[in-house]
Amino acid sequence: MRLSELGELGLLRELERRGLVDRIADDAAVVGGLVVTQDALVEDVHFRLDWTSWRDLGYKAAAVNLSDLAASGAEPLGLVVSLGLRAETKAGDVIELYEGLNEPGVPVVGGDTTTAGSPLLSVTALGRSDRVPGRGGARPGDVLVVTGPLGASAAGFLSLENGLGSPLESAHRRPPLRLVEGRELARHAHAMLDLSDGLAADVGHLAERSGVRCVVDLDAVPVAPGVEEVANRLGRDAVEMACGFGEDYELLAALPEPAAHAVVGRCEVGSGVDLLRGGAPFALSGWEHFRAGRV
Amino acid sequence: MRLSELGELGLLRELERRGLVDRIADDAAVVGGLVVTQDALVEDVHFRLDWTSWRDLGYKAAAVNLSDLAASGAEPLGLVVSLGLRAETKAGDVIELYEGLNEPGVPVVGGDTTTAGSPLLSVTALGRSDRVPGRGGARPGDVLVVTGPLGASAAGFLSLENGLGSPLESAHRRPPLRLVEGRELARHAHAMLDLSDGLAADVGHLAERSGVRCVVDLDAVPVAPGVEEVANRLGRDAVEMACGFGEDYELLAALPEPAAHAVVGRCEVGSGVDLLRGGAPFALSGWEHFRAGRV
Repeated sequence: MRLSELGELGLLRELERRGLVDRIADDAAVVGGLVVTQDALVEDVHFRLDWTSWRDLGYKAAAVNLSDLAASGAEPLGLVVSLGLRAETKAGDVIELYEGLNEPGVPVVGGDTTTAGSPLLSVTALGRSDRVPGRGGARPGDVLVVTGPLGASAAGFLSLENGLGSPLESAHRRPPLRLVEGRELARHAHAMLDLSDGLAADVGHLAERSGVRCVVDLDAVPVAPGVEEVANRLGRDAVEMACGFGEDYELLAALPEPAAHAVVGRCEVGSGVDLLRGGAPFALSGWEHFRAGRV
Repeated sequence: MRLSELGELGLLRELERRGLVDRIADDAAVVGGLVVTQDALVEDVHFRLDWTSWRDLGYKAAAVNLSDLAASGAEPLGLVVSLGLRAETKAGDVIELYEGLNEPGVPVVGGDTTTAGSPLLSVTALGRSDRVPGRGGARPGDVLVVTGPLGASAAGFLSLENGLGSPLESAHRRPPLRLVEGRELARHAHAMLDLSDGLAADVGHLAERSGVRCVVDLDAVPVAPGVEEVANRLGRDAVEMACGFGEDYELLAALPEPAAHAVVGRCEVGSGVDLLRGGAPFALSGWEHFRAGRV
């Protein structure tokens, strides 16, 4: 079977079933008391150098890993960066990339630099957390909250793709850092993850790991300012952009009681996900590697 | 300036000078009490899928990172693996890759899986060490030792390249694990690193970081059995293959006194490297990314 048929999640399930990897689908692993997270960014899959500056690319590579630490309630300690570059790359571009990597204020403490035919970055973030909620602890009765409005990254991406010049393009290049919110939520959350694949997909990961049914009221999802305008210009649906695209890097948490964040749904006994719009079921999927190509 | 002119080491020096990265040229970083090392393997730079099985590729990706832990005197705790794969990759191949990654017995505890136009692996190894010798502590009067014979990987690579069918091809695919030796040496070594770029280059890294002059007697370097034969068949020099190619993944240590390992040289007051053959200076360089292309 090819990965295109099995999909990323099918592959991870098969590797776990065989005991070849432990909890690879989680945001972060805990090793020797540290929280460890790793993400690879590959040209033409995760970024296009004609759409992003080297500095923004570095920032985003750091931010998406720090987002996994945020979802683990962790205080970041350092980044380890592996970089694959063409030999004809300008040294000034690499310096800008490292300036972007350093911008969130977490030191780059090591890594590897290598030749590659196509640029790639692999970033490992290390941190310390008093309590990692994980994805598997949500219980029936929990409310589901998100830490901020969604859809800005999707709108920015579609603006870039269609040459609209929306100010949200910068939201696609520079995701938010939710480290403070993550540490605060981690004290009480039964489960938490960051929204990298889109709320529709990510809430499914939480439901599956926790063994609960997640009911999400799409009408309650906060949509970022400006998303509606991009949606209108492209004849698309703002809620689908906010919940079906991903790369928002806000946090989704299951809490025993409401908090100072937007409540978008609740957990119930059962399995799977109900997305409701105007009270009626609504079909929407998120992002999964190998099944389709983004960018 | 392009990376092809600046070279990997020039780039790292420039990034350090600007405070954008700390000690990236070291084998491993120490973060929150853990030793962390990361290496990226890129198709057609570090491996060719027509030369290696998926299982051997997984083994080598784990081994080269565990080699950095060995050079840090660390006990390994876990591996984090990021994998970029084409959507048409067979799931069975990926399972074999993970079987190889698991073979050294260190659990794979997390990571990331993503689509990529060209396969790549980024492995982070985490471990705990009572004492990390580092590269910068060698002192005049130290002896330089290596933990095993060199050149088998070079001979295996050249055999693959020239279709010689040498049994050393497996040495190129499956580097040794020197974790036990590394922990033992770390108790006394003033400096230690693993031989990934070739003794000629790696001893230079040790000399530069330590501020000493390294004098290496190439006649004292143990050459692996079978290397001479491959060298003869190709009209090449076995000592150059053993000291100028890399990927041996034996350890090089600077010790205050001789140990149960082969002594290949000594540290003196000064800077730079003297390679001696038959008592006379001998010119030989090792591997540096961006300056040339291997494979």
